[in-house]
Amino acid sequence: MSTRASKRQKTEEKDAYHLIYWPGVPGRGEHIRLALEEAGAEYTDTAHQEDGMKTVTSLISDQNTGDSHNPPPLAPPALKHGEYIISQTPNILMYLGPQLGLVPDVSEDPVGIYHVNSLTLTALDGLSNEPHDVHHPIAVGEYYENQKDEAKKKAKDYRESRLPKFLAYFERVLSGDASKGGEYLYVNGVSFAFPKCVEKLKGSGKYDKVFKHYEMVKGRENIKSYLESDRRQEYSMGIYRHYPELDDE
Amino acid sequence: MSTRASKRQKTEEKDAYHLIYWPGVPGRGEHIRLALEEAGAEYTDTAHQEDGMKTVTSLISDQNTGDSHNPPPLAPPALKHGEYIISQTPNILMYLGPQLGLVPDVSEDPVGIYHVNSLTLTALDGLSNEPHDVHHPIAVGEYYENQKDEAKKKAKDYRESRLPKFLAYFERVLSGDASKGGEYLYVNGVSFAFPKCVEKLKGSGKYDKVFKHYEMVKGRENIKSYLESDRRQEYSMGIYRHYPELDDE
Repeated sequence: MSTRASKRQKTEEKDAYHLIYWPGVPGRGEHIRLALEEAGAEYTDTAHQEDGMKTVTSLISDQNTGDSHNPPPLAPPALKHGEYIISQTPNILMYLGPQLGLVPDVSEDPVGIYHVNSLTLTALDGLSNEPHDVHHPIAVGEYYENQKDEAKKKAKDYRESRLPKFLAYFERVLSGDASKGGEYLYVNGVSFAFPKCVEKLKGSGKYDKVFKHYEMVKGRENIKSYLESDRRQEYSMGIYRHYPELDDE
Repeated sequence: MSTRASKRQKTEEKDAYHLIYWPGVPGRGEHIRLALEEAGAEYTDTAHQEDGMKTVTSLISDQNTGDSHNPPPLAPPALKHGEYIISQTPNILMYLGPQLGLVPDVSEDPVGIYHVNSLTLTALDGLSNEPHDVHHPIAVGEYYENQKDEAKKKAKDYRESRLPKFLAYFERVLSGDASKGGEYLYVNGVSFAFPKCVEKLKGSGKYDKVFKHYEMVKGRENIKSYLESDRRQEYSMGIYRHYPELDDE
């Protein structure tokens, strides 16, 4: 559903974007939503559709071998666009980037899209995949409660070593000439999962460019309006989970 | 160094590919090498250069903020091509794919490259990143010996749940119409790390298309010649590690 449809000229079906992702948490679908919202694109979202869950499960069913145009996706998010289905978060972003005007034009900067993609992949590694692995260090198919001891150890390493490493990296990127003052877009739920730790790191003053950039992104007109809308779902038991015992004391 | 240089017309420096990766193990650099070797491209490789290690460390130094064309990479592999430096394994492959003719031509299949990229990302997740995490489930910066108990638990889950899941997925992809008989390229070191487990899964007959595809790729002229050359390094203590205690009994 796009609550914006009424405000805009109707997009033809062949050009419409359809996001297929689990309802209930922002999850990995959120990276796609933020790109679509920033660009003001019209899209539907299974997270807000009555039969959304069914669309997701049938897409990733063991029985789905895809069709002549598309291999089957392993997992959501997927983007349906015309007759095509594209999967894997950074891949969808790379597909959308030029279409939504979110990456440098190839005639001006032939490798800009690859630089954006490398930053996207690095942000997804350190600020999305690793925070997920913190609460599921042993087995993704098992309950958190069954791997809590290991999760505590991994959380300590994430807070003390990994998160500062990634923040320092992005601080360095934003210090470099290629960042052009920081046009790139990355937003994260790490501060939901580890509020005390993030507050401490922010207070250290070592990652000021990163946190300033984060505020700038949150304040962009379309992103701000999205975050305040009912299209934005709450963090809860998805990738980013707030277990106080995994945060700083 | 390219031992093939003598056999070919000399590539001009501005067009030459330079792979920057740790010497000593195939590692993530291997995915890039296989693409370059399959295409018969000329390239240099820091893994075979006397000062290769220094090139890698200076590239990923805390002091490197990149230049006006390039943000700094977080980690190798990186590809230097003319004035550009591209990082992140799947990103480099996506950059090389069209240049080396390893992805469908955009005029015939506008989204072929995105489908190849989604399969690449999935293969890297399940057959490269996860096997690495098996021997380092808690902290990448700590010794294996300090997280051996957790590694045993994670290895059990990987062998019994994750690896079969990814093999079943690729079997499904290869069963689908979009695979066109299996032109795509993915090769892995999982059978080095978990030889007994892989032998068992192979013997089950459930993943015949995957293993047949693997043999086909290994038998391709350029890949075969590469694997037999001194450009190919041995697996040892990199991503793929053979700890008998982490394999099936």
